[in-house]
Amino acid sequence: MIELGVVYRNIERTERRLADALGAFGSATAHEAMGRVGAFKPYLRPIYPGAQVSGTAVTVLLQPGDNWMLHVAAEQIEPGDIVVAAALSESTDGFFGDLLATSFKARGARALVIDGGCRDVRTLTQMQFPVWSRAISIKGTVKATLGSVNVPVVCAGALVHPGDVIVADDDGVVCVPRARAGATLEAAAKREANEHEKRAKLASGVLGLDMYQMRESLAKAGLRTIDG
Amino acid sequence: MIELGVVYRNIERTERRLADALGAFGSATAHEAMGRVGAFKPYLRPIYPGAQVSGTAVTVLLQPGDNWMLHVAAEQIEPGDIVVAAALSESTDGFFGDLLATSFKARGARALVIDGGCRDVRTLTQMQFPVWSRAISIKGTVKATLGSVNVPVVCAGALVHPGDVIVADDDGVVCVPRARAGATLEAAAKREANEHEKRAKLASGVLGLDMYQMRESLAKAGLRTIDG
Amino acid sequence: MIELGVVYRNIERTERRLADALGAFGSATAHEAMGRVGAFKPYLRPIYPGAQVSGTAVTVLLQPGDNWMLHVAAEQIEPGDIVVAAALSESTDGFFGDLLATSFKARGARALVIDGGCRDVRTLTQMQFPVWSRAISIKGTVKATLGSVNVPVVCAGALVHPGDVIVADDDGVVCVPRARAGATLEAAAKREANEHEKRAKLASGVLGLDMYQMRESLAKAGLRTIDG
Amino acid sequence: MIELGVVYRNIERTERRLADALGAFGSATAHEAMGRVGAFKPYLRPIYPGAQVSGTAVTVLLQPGDNWMLHVAAEQIEPGDIVVAAALSESTDGFFGDLLATSFKARGARALVIDGGCRDVRTLTQMQFPVWSRAISIKGTVKATLGSVNVPVVCAGALVHPGDVIVADDDGVVCVPRARAGATLEAAAKREANEHEKRAKLASGVLGLDMYQMRESLAKAGLRTIDG
Amino acid sequence: MIELGVVYRNIERTERRLADALGAFGSATAHEAMGRVGAFKPYLRPIYPGAQVSGTAVTVLLQPGDNWMLHVAAEQIEPGDIVVAAALSESTDGFFGDLLATSFKARGARALVIDGGCRDVRTLTQMQFPVWSRAISIKGTVKATLGSVNVPVVCAGALVHPGDVIVADDDGVVCVPRARAGATLEAAAKREANEHEKRAKLASGVLGLDMYQMRESLAKAGLRTIDG
Amino acid sequence: MIELGVVYRNIERTERRLADALGAFGSATAHEAMGRVGAFKPYLRPIYPGAQVSGTAVTVLLQPGDNWMLHVAAEQIEPGDIVVAAALSESTDGFFGDLLATSFKARGARALVIDGGCRDVRTLTQMQFPVWSRAISIKGTVKATLGSVNVPVVCAGALVHPGDVIVADDDGVVCVPRARAGATLEAAAKREANEHEKRAKLASGVLGLDMYQMRESLAKAGLRTIDG
Repeated sequence: MIELGVVYRNIERTERRLADALGAFGSATAHEAMGRVGAFKPYLRPIYPGAQVSGTAVTVLLQPGDNWMLHVAAEQIEPGDIVVAAALSESTDGFFGDLLATSFKARGARALVIDGGCRDVRTLTQMQFPVWSRAISIKGTVKATLGSVNVPVVCAGALVHPGDVIVADDDGVVCVPRARAGATLEAAAKREANEHEKRAKLASGVLGLDMYQMRESLAKAGLRTIDG
Repeated sequence: MIELGVVYRNIERTERRLADALGAFGSATAHEAMGRVGAFKPYLRPIYPGAQVSGTAVTVLLQPGDNWMLHVAAEQIEPGDIVVAAALSESTDGFFGDLLATSFKARGARALVIDGGCRDVRTLTQMQFPVWSRAISIKGTVKATLGSVNVPVVCAGALVHPGDVIVADDDGVVCVPRARAGATLEAAAKREANEHEKRAKLASGVLGLDMYQMRESLAKAGLRTIDG
Repeated sequence: MIELGVVYRNIERTERRLADALGAFGSATAHEAMGRVGAFKPYLRPIYPGAQVSGTAVTVLLQPGDNWMLHVAAEQIEPGDIVVAAALSESTDGFFGDLLATSFKARGARALVIDGGCRDVRTLTQMQFPVWSRAISIKGTVKATLGSVNVPVVCAGALVHPGDVIVADDDGVVCVPRARAGATLEAAAKREANEHEKRAKLASGVLGLDMYQMRESLAKAGLRTIDG
Repeated sequence: MIELGVVYRNIERTERRLADALGAFGSATAHEAMGRVGAFKPYLRPIYPGAQVSGTAVTVLLQPGDNWMLHVAAEQIEPGDIVVAAALSESTDGFFGDLLATSFKARGARALVIDGGCRDVRTLTQMQFPVWSRAISIKGTVKATLGSVNVPVVCAGALVHPGDVIVADDDGVVCVPRARAGATLEAAAKREANEHEKRAKLASGVLGLDMYQMRESLAKAGLRTIDG
Repeated sequence: MIELGVVYRNIERTERRLADALGAFGSATAHEAMGRVGAFKPYLRPIYPGAQVSGTAVTVLLQPGDNWMLHVAAEQIEPGDIVVAAALSESTDGFFGDLLATSFKARGARALVIDGGCRDVRTLTQMQFPVWSRAISIKGTVKATLGSVNVPVVCAGALVHPGDVIVADDDGVVCVPRARAGATLEAAAKREANEHEKRAKLASGVLGLDMYQMRESLAKAGLRTIDG
Repeated sequence: MIELGVVYRNIERTERRLADALGAFGSATAHEAMGRVGAFKPYLRPIYPGAQVSGTAVTVLLQPGDNWMLHVAAEQIEPGDIVVAAALSESTDGFFGDLLATSFKARGARALVIDGGCRDVRTLTQMQFPVWSRAISIKGTVKATLGSVNVPVVCAGALVHPGDVIVADDDGVVCVPRARAGATLEAAAKREANEHEKRAKLASGVLGLDMYQMRESLAKAGLRTIDG
């Protein structure tokens, strides 16, 4: 239940081995392997290109324009976590900068995913602390009103429970629920194995129409081909 | 006429020589040379910087969240084409990724312009297959409902007929209709010739006010100058 | 007062020493040092990463889709200025390109901040003439209707008077009013001095909760901690 | 071809009988009867509820923030026309108000569909001159730069040729190309006939699952039902 | 867990008495009574003014541009339910019209809340079947791909479990989780009782500053009053 | 200067006679009479149709998601004022509802213009207290951080000084600076006088092309007329 004014500690995290292994497949493959659910909305973008991470979610519920709970969340971070910060209403303010990043990194966090703004992006890039945010903004925030830490949150349209696996890269962000991490990892591995072979065929000029045997279903659906 | 469930093949393409030559001028110059029409809306952005391409349009009409027709379009690609994909309603889903890019490239496509989302951007960057899209998104699509290939389409606000010339670079995307390709090429060349001289003058400190002889028309329009 | 059809020349600029010194602190620190006001909306983004500039504002009020006044503004530029261009209604058109940039640079301008679109971004990047804009767009503009130069303007939500200090970098853009430049510089220096020490503490694992002594106020606000 | 600076007169209009008859079915039915194409984007909204009109398109291509061509278009209006105004770039300015409406109405226009803003909405409501617009805005426009009248236009994502049929009501706006008006009218009539019977069945409690015989295809697609 | 291809039936609904009683307080009061959580994003708007409803949620997860699952959901509706439809990616298509409304109403549904588009709004208004939607759109949808019914969904940013209470009116929509319905009802009643008295005081000219005793905390926060 | 934590009282208001008289002309005419400046962005919409008001501005600067300063502003309201509330960053939260409206009305306020959200719209409609807002939202706000009252503000893109005249109706909102109220009133009266005559001519079928003598300038601009 989404509630305010509470910090849950000692949350149950997805097994580290699973959380780490999922990262290698990237966000798109993890999303496909789960059956095309779990995607964060695409307005979340990385502040610099090239980062690819996975980890276990520490969740934060923020008041708009107020980053108090990010400080509270720092204490709950364990090595291998990714902080996922949702806001109670849409805000692009700069909730997060290099000082918080220094603290998060010192605690072992691998990244931040925030449905809000971020600043100090040059320093964050130098620190190689990746952030996926909805905006880059200098607008400062206050520390005045309680939110929560480690409650279920809706971040950029995705439902995240504390301890779920987060996979993020240049394509976007996906949440793999704890209970599905094992099955998703297996499906992702299978999917990727298949893709190598498919890629080779397509590169040789074989058409997807033939490789996926689409011609019959297209004809059945009524597709007509006409000379232009 | 915009219609569904049909593939036109053997379309009439703009002469290759014209299509190729227009690329060298870039999208902004081609747009100006046509009299300031033909621009795609600026929400289409390249997935990586630095690409500058031109080619002849193979058009695709997609159902929202459905990339079936991209597979159908692959068969219609000839070397030197650029695929232009419109959607029947606004969608940021990830219609296109590295497998389709491999197939398109094998067929000779130079780029994709899509009024939808794209994924696998890191791989696409490594492949140097440029895409102009409205979003980067992991959200997977289905293959269930017919659209069309090589019908006239409206993509990001621009009207594109199969075989028209597409010019795309870091500034955006423009469509040069087949019948205007020759005249546009000529006008673009003339425009660029002029720009070299203008640039030199401006760099030397000459004001546009004087170079373009604007002072009289500004005065006539009533512009007043006051000491602040 | 916002008025049309007028150019103010010989505006009173913030002292060069102050305008230059503020740039070193960056936009976020300048914004904080002023008490969290003065920020331009975050939809303004730099056309290339890595630029960090400050300067005195020459303001321009543009008609939508019309860049005539940018040519008029060029004459008012002095070395160390940053042109700040607002539009009378929202427009993403490409008001500015490499020719105007050549002219602005020759006059000594350090940058352009424009609540509109920009084009020729590859050339501008090569020239290292930084622009913060709301869009990158090839759409050409006309030269038909008067706006103003060096009147107060509202640009991306920020109020800017001619001669104010503009600080811009990868995080965004801020306006420091002339009358507050000295005090802001002082506050910024103090703030940055503090940050070094704070950063070291946080890097060593000290929590913000303890460093900022937040625990008491959080408890007073009613924050509960529960084992998950 | 989309071109500037030209007015086509004596355009070929869809037969009045067809254009009028399509209006009775409303925009959603006309859109379905064409096979789900031709819809204008839903950001176009009527300025007052309850209007339902159809007519033949007189098209206008506007420069952003410039309503000159609406005056030019007035001369081309014949009784039973609907003016369809597109803009060369996105603009919410108030291109249209009660004076132009008075003129359009005097010429026999039934409505305006504009990818821009409208003002004087109270007076327009009293006059019962319906407008579908992207915004209501007091922002005035200039009369300075040429667009065109009766060229093909892209308005709110829809391709419209002069003389096509426009159907508009509280649900939105659709364009029925001249060549398809007859077939669309027939299909719309058939569709509506079916709907009466379907509505009665559904009102009596019959499920769409049964009426449309969906259960088998749902099962084949793998739908599982579980007790919650 | 959010999953695809499944229908949960015989869900546990909030007690009817609680669900009905909450409706009388309206969405804003229910939201405040829960501690300011549970609000749907404000882009959901009623298709006509004046409706105020509450009921128990039957949830639907839709594929973008595909309304198949709404037909599946109809079978799960019981009198007093409100259907809450989320989409796997953003879509404004017209998923819902008068035929589905007829079916939903016959099954006892009180309203639809949909993170997508709706059409036939004139007929729906005549039927007095209220819909809160993100758009009004004629764009038709297909019936091709499975979603789910009665799984937890994220609709317009709000987390909804089947059987939760939905309260909707001209101000917006809120979800009251089943486990909190009783406490929320109590708090809402208390809040409303207080408001009558407050309203009378304010109407007599008493200031909120005095009634809420804000002067001291404002002074402590440093508020200065200056003669203008 | 925009500053935080301060309330200016005893501001200098525009002469009541001027402020009242401007309201009769409506927002579009006042905007035109000033030379097409002063318009608020069109995303501000009235919560109910039909209100037309004018008054003198009491300005408020709000923190995002925090309505404390609206309570502070109430004390500064005098009969005939309109409260204009800006926010330091974009927020659609429900800052204002029926209790504050009761207080504002008791103090003599005529309306609220807010670059944020509003709730209790049904009650506000019954009270006939008009509000122009960017959203209708149930999302509650806190009272924790200082803003200001009666400082210059930028609200929905418009610069407003305390005491300026605000005119608002179904078309939108405009600010007439105190120093220009007299001249604007005169120009508005002249403009409206002209419009009666123009309207009659246009209604009789005279074209704007002839009435405004546009044919020559159109020809000079190069407009060609072609038989379609």
